Amino acid sequence: MPVITLTTDFGIHDHYVAAMKGVVLSIAPDATIVDVTHHVQPQDVLHGAIVLAQTVDWFPDDAVHVAVVDPGVGTSRRILAVRYGRQTIVAPDNGIVSLICRDRQPDAIHAVENPAYRASDVSATFHGRDIIAPAAAHIAAGVSMERLGPTVDSIVTVDWPAPTRSDATTLSGEILYADHFGNLITNISRCDVKEFLARETVPTVWLASHEIGPLRRTYSNVEIGQPIALFGSAGLLEISVRDGSAARTFGLARGASVILRKASDPT
Amino acid sequence: MPVITLTTDFGIHDHYVAAMKGVVLSIAPDATIVDVTHHVQPQDVLHGAIVLAQTVDWFPDDAVHVAVVDPGVGTSRRILAVRYGRQTIVAPDNGIVSLICRDRQPDAIHAVENPAYRASDVSATFHGRDIIAPAAAHIAAGVSMERLGPTVDSIVTVDWPAPTRSDATTLSGEILYADHFGNLITNISRCDVKEFLARETVPTVWLASHEIGPLRRTYSNVEIGQPIALFGSAGLLEISVRDGSAARTFGLARGASVILRKASDPT
Amino acid sequence: MPVITLTTDFGIHDHYVAAMKGVVLSIAPDATIVDVTHHVQPQDVLHGAIVLAQTVDWFPDDAVHVAVVDPGVGTSRRILAVRYGRQTIVAPDNGIVSLICRDRQPDAIHAVENPAYRASDVSATFHGRDIIAPAAAHIAAGVSMERLGPTVDSIVTVDWPAPTRSDATTLSGEILYADHFGNLITNISRCDVKEFLARETVPTVWLASHEIGPLRRTYSNVEIGQPIALFGSAGLLEISVRDGSAARTFGLARGASVILRKASDPT
Repeated sequence: MPVITLTTDFGIHDHYVAAMKGVVLSIAPDATIVDVTHHVQPQDVLHGAIVLAQTVDWFPDDAVHVAVVDPGVGTSRRILAVRYGRQTIVAPDNGIVSLICRDRQPDAIHAVENPAYRASDVSATFHGRDIIAPAAAHIAAGVSMERLGPTVDSIVTVDWPAPTRSDATTLSGEILYADHFGNLITNISRCDVKEFLARETVPTVWLASHEIGPLRRTYSNVEIGQPIALFGSAGLLEISVRDGSAARTFGLARGASVILRKASDPT
Repeated sequence: MPVITLTTDFGIHDHYVAAMKGVVLSIAPDATIVDVTHHVQPQDVLHGAIVLAQTVDWFPDDAVHVAVVDPGVGTSRRILAVRYGRQTIVAPDNGIVSLICRDRQPDAIHAVENPAYRASDVSATFHGRDIIAPAAAHIAAGVSMERLGPTVDSIVTVDWPAPTRSDATTLSGEILYADHFGNLITNISRCDVKEFLARETVPTVWLASHEIGPLRRTYSNVEIGQPIALFGSAGLLEISVRDGSAARTFGLARGASVILRKASDPT
Repeated sequence: MPVITLTTDFGIHDHYVAAMKGVVLSIAPDATIVDVTHHVQPQDVLHGAIVLAQTVDWFPDDAVHVAVVDPGVGTSRRILAVRYGRQTIVAPDNGIVSLICRDRQPDAIHAVENPAYRASDVSATFHGRDIIAPAAAHIAAGVSMERLGPTVDSIVTVDWPAPTRSDATTLSGEILYADHFGNLITNISRCDVKEFLARETVPTVWLASHEIGPLRRTYSNVEIGQPIALFGSAGLLEISVRDGSAARTFGLARGASVILRKASDPT
């Protein structure tokens, strides 16, 4: 019962997602297909890469992840099958895979080129259906990655906006996106903060010109309606409003500045 | 092939639902997962309870229903596994389970506390993924509810706005929500009306100051574009506009008054 | 492992889709259920017919397709099981099935009437749950179509707005709908254009008063942000904006005029 997940920017109004599922089930009839989301911002590879990176860890060994955010369809960009540990991702080589393990190279990378494992008639506009879904389904059904095409040395990477230390007491990051609850997800990870703090102190968090307060552990640390900074379930710093929406309260979105100041900071 | 359903307020733009599914499939690889909806109004427990109550009856024996509308995450609210007949619901103890059988107590209630059946590292913000989904998957995979934690005496209940009789000829209720078609779903059940009428008469239905007309049986009883009051497929009185949207036509939402007057009413 | 697909206008906020899935799984526990879309425009049979026609080809033999766009619920419209080749569609007889094979009659048509294969208590408003889903599940589970009810001679058809030739060098069509990316999908198929051109020439495409340019093969034929006319993945002519939204750029929707002029056209 192989698991195949789908992360796309196709939306859910058209037949596109279903066409991919039909292709998968024609090749791997007993696959369990899981929609991650079809609401990646249209053609926003960084957003797709963030969603995918937060997803794969939760799936069992041998899951195959399909990611189709593909502004380059119809150009010469490659399609890759990429393996990390026992999981495989099939996607355009545009960086969407590159945030899964930022600290290490994939265990294997193959170009998806073998015509035996794609549609007999490949369209010019929908490689998700005609190349990526068939390749993923064949892998899920037991075809080895080597059969899909030649080894590739490296993958394209997206520009991850790493947080920076402007001075010894300040860590500067930014908002990546707002989630469904209006939580503002930042690019500052638990590791980044550990490294920055070195010892057990509690930094103060600023969102643009708003002082959010000390870094907290759980929503119940503040009253309902109050803003709070804490680590979300994916290990990234989030600015939230308890039982409310930080996105609505602060009216800020991607790129807004987030700053942590150490308690020892005289400011 | 156990069935696990998901009812949440997570939306479908983020990785949250997929993370729960990955957790479920890691524990119960052959589970059939069904999304009920991820569009419960954010943190609106009553709305979640209504959706859940309209859903469970349609599922086969041994289905496990996950419901995560959880404004209390990070507080001391309990998580429960609740059994009615042969179906089980796993959810925070905040009332979301309480409309399934308003007339009787669950057949079994257990607190979900056993660390053996949750994530090894429980986050402060996402108990749906770290506690509720694993517990549901273990139950679906055959673990008995008793293993999850101690028996609990009763569940928290939501305030169901029961219809009232202001006088002998008037039954007063209210709009609970508008569905996707703009049908206005009320809190007045078929049973409520049977009891109110006592004998075979046809009441007249009012929505706020609008006379909708007599209670009808099917859309074809009125012309296209005309309003109609009838029992919907879940046994609740609805105000609709045939081939249109009552929500748009009347501009009314939750809490608006709905009144039934008996034919014998002189008004 | 039979496959059952669902195409409806139910949206995804209510319990309606889940109720149908619960009914299906109660009858065919090992069915793989695929959501095509639940966002057909409410009660828009033509839109549903277009989505369905673009979907079925991608599914394996023996798939059963449920289509519920049903403005006639509660009237005397029939419900049909329709077979093309090895695939079956169960739907109201309102034309939603009629674009799958416009050039030929179905291989079998049966009215769905046998009370043994529907809910024991059929509601007046939700035949999708009470009649259509059970019939589809029984077919998927191996019940022959003949058991569902008597043979029917023909199906209701929707008015497909066929493109027309206003003169020897002009083919006139229209926009059917905008997809999630803002691509404007037309009623002009690859076949229509082949027939129109007769030999290898490249027509010029007009959208209302906008000259889009020559018919192209792939997005990379134009610069980012430029409009382009090409055949989409379903074989229909589309007007797109590369990495943008033609719907937003041109502000046009269903019914807008699309014209192809042959290169030999003196205009």
